[in-house]
Amino acid sequence: MENFDFYAPAEIVFGKGTQKKTGELLKGRAKKALLHYGSGSIKKSGLYDEIVASLKQSGIDFVELGGVQPNPRLSLVHDGIALCKKEGVDFILAVGGGSAIDSAKAIAMGFYYDGDVWDIYEQHKAIEKALPVATVLTIPAAGSESSGDTVVTNEEKQLKYGYGSPRLRPVFSIVNPELFFTLPKNQIANGVADMMSHVFERYFTNTTHTDLTDGLCETVLRTIIKNAPLVYRNPKNYDAWCEIGFSGTVAHNGLVGMGREQDWACHGMEHELSAIYDVAHGAGLAVLTPAWMSYVYKTNVNMFVQFAVNIMGVNGSYRDPDAIVREGIDRLGEFFRGIGLPSTLGELGIDESKLEVMARKATKDAFGKENPLGGLKKLYWKDVLEIYRLAK
Amino acid sequence: MENFDFYAPAEIVFGKGTQKKTGELLKGRAKKALLHYGSGSIKKSGLYDEIVASLKQSGIDFVELGGVQPNPRLSLVHDGIALCKKEGVDFILAVGGGSAIDSAKAIAMGFYYDGDVWDIYEQHKAIEKALPVATVLTIPAAGSESSGDTVVTNEEKQLKYGYGSPRLRPVFSIVNPELFFTLPKNQIANGVADMMSHVFERYFTNTTHTDLTDGLCETVLRTIIKNAPLVYRNPKNYDAWCEIGFSGTVAHNGLVGMGREQDWACHGMEHELSAIYDVAHGAGLAVLTPAWMSYVYKTNVNMFVQFAVNIMGVNGSYRDPDAIVREGIDRLGEFFRGIGLPSTLGELGIDESKLEVMARKATKDAFGKENPLGGLKKLYWKDVLEIYRLAK
Repeated sequence: MENFDFYAPAEIVFGKGTQKKTGELLKGRAKKALLHYGSGSIKKSGLYDEIVASLKQSGIDFVELGGVQPNPRLSLVHDGIALCKKEGVDFILAVGGGSAIDSAKAIAMGFYYDGDVWDIYEQHKAIEKALPVATVLTIPAAGSESSGDTVVTNEEKQLKYGYGSPRLRPVFSIVNPELFFTLPKNQIANGVADMMSHVFERYFTNTTHTDLTDGLCETVLRTIIKNAPLVYRNPKNYDAWCEIGFSGTVAHNGLVGMGREQDWACHGMEHELSAIYDVAHGAGLAVLTPAWMSYVYKTNVNMFVQFAVNIMGVNGSYRDPDAIVREGIDRLGEFFRGIGLPSTLGELGIDESKLEVMARKATKDAFGKENPLGGLKKLYWKDVLEIYRLAK
Repeated sequence: MENFDFYAPAEIVFGKGTQKKTGELLKGRAKKALLHYGSGSIKKSGLYDEIVASLKQSGIDFVELGGVQPNPRLSLVHDGIALCKKEGVDFILAVGGGSAIDSAKAIAMGFYYDGDVWDIYEQHKAIEKALPVATVLTIPAAGSESSGDTVVTNEEKQLKYGYGSPRLRPVFSIVNPELFFTLPKNQIANGVADMMSHVFERYFTNTTHTDLTDGLCETVLRTIIKNAPLVYRNPKNYDAWCEIGFSGTVAHNGLVGMGREQDWACHGMEHELSAIYDVAHGAGLAVLTPAWMSYVYKTNVNMFVQFAVNIMGVNGSYRDPDAIVREGIDRLGEFFRGIGLPSTLGELGIDESKLEVMARKATKDAFGKENPLGGLKKLYWKDVLEIYRLAK
């Protein structure tokens, strides 16, 4: 186990009816909030009215900014920063999924930054201050409700960059699985793939002596694999949604990856797909993850045997570890297809034409310097290109 | 799953050499700290000197109060409060195990309380303020480094009471497993029993649909069961200590019990043993837990089958669930004995004479009102007496 620092201060207020506590939880913390949300589905569902009523009841003044899109856009972040400055906002309340929350975090740190907030993403600048952020989660997926991470797309430059700081951890997050009942099936599946990837990216490691975190990763993944088909078949299954919702939060609050070298290659490779083709992040991950596994598993066969046995339930002769691993990867692909996720880049509408461009972008930092992906195995642009091709 | 509120803001700074960061972590948070510790073993080990050097380097002024005993005494807490007031202390740094940390938390809340701090324990008063507390952990056991809980013994009244508040969560806790190398074997074993009990008390529940937290509990317990004999045999096994140290923190930061009705009967019954006979908390729990299991398991046989199979590794015919459960309980007893823990009250020097007195005290609140223990099964004084007798 490596040295680590675990800090997950976001208060998770979980369960039925908890969105009604929003105003009460903001009391004493916010005078004037920015209510930040997406396409307006929260207006159809009635959630918007509930939140507004709760804010009014607690005497919290607010302005609002909707319109966050999946792969949240830098231009809206700029609008949000300007609005917060003009209106004297002192708190941001994001109501939505990872996109609304990530956009809120971008506004929160941009508020105190003199230049263009994109610099922070591009140059990984340490931030000193950010407006406090809280969330009401409507899509379990990104884990942004507990993490200090934010991912934003610069639509002009076709770049999708992530950034993380402990100062961006939400103050509190309301997670009511009832709010997930109306999600379309593709969003359910994309969310599942995303939260699974958050665990996989931490799980696959060359670090040894990791009994506890191995077990934590495995139990989160088994829980998701058991419950995802239940909510996919019946999106009103509250009990199964509780498991998925809580798993999504635990998957990304940091705990399951503590003391381990982490990987994050699949996220890096996927961000190129989203940036250029605007595909759903989870769908991209579902395509790339099995391809990545096939490409890298020989680097650490025992780690992948453990994945196949402890997560995918493969049992058989340990005398042929490659067969065990391949069976595990096949089962993962079957699981994804079982909840309607794609298996190939073709299904995402991505052809051969830009694979090399994406592979080269994925392995360069903002200054154009070579910056290979991955922890378990370092991936250079030719490796990434091979993986894209495996996923064709 | 039930509604829950998860809040675990303590920053866990984990690994080799981390005690040297103490001063740096206190910078900007403390002007004058109370350095609070136990018997002075930290002076022999050199830890005291390292901490003092780190405080001086960061310009943190401090006063000190040693002498915390196991089952920390209210009288020393009173001394600590008086000292902090006199010296204008604004931060408490506990260096030690659960006793030093619990004593520090008592001082922290007593500092702002006008009456006797014991009132807070006795009457479960909500507190508004407490001095901030941080810890350098030297014994993995109580989990107090991440929890908001404190347990103190009123030696005059022979009462041992617990209290919890989110305001008592440490700001940060330094957990360096190298500091555990010099622990005597009985303290190693007592700590293991204590952290296991923190998980058991959350694990055994009648709440249904608890896949994720069942799995989290089980993996923490399996990790402890695997690694405890390793550190018991070789107290310089850093890798195994990492697993035990991190497990002890995760066992009691709240996570593994979220959304579950919890039990805590064994802790309630054990506090009576410690209050009257001053036995080590972990040793008392090792005696009482198997007896409690034998007494209550028929209330929820399936829960105990799951314990036996998923934690104790029992496999056999599920057509005789009682046999599975009994085998699981037997294995737990064997595990405890294997690391030198007692199996009977007799081994703790406790005879029949006060069993009834303790059973009656354990099931009364501070106002003398009947207050049964337990969540999985409510235990009245006659039940507790039966369990004490089973453990004779």
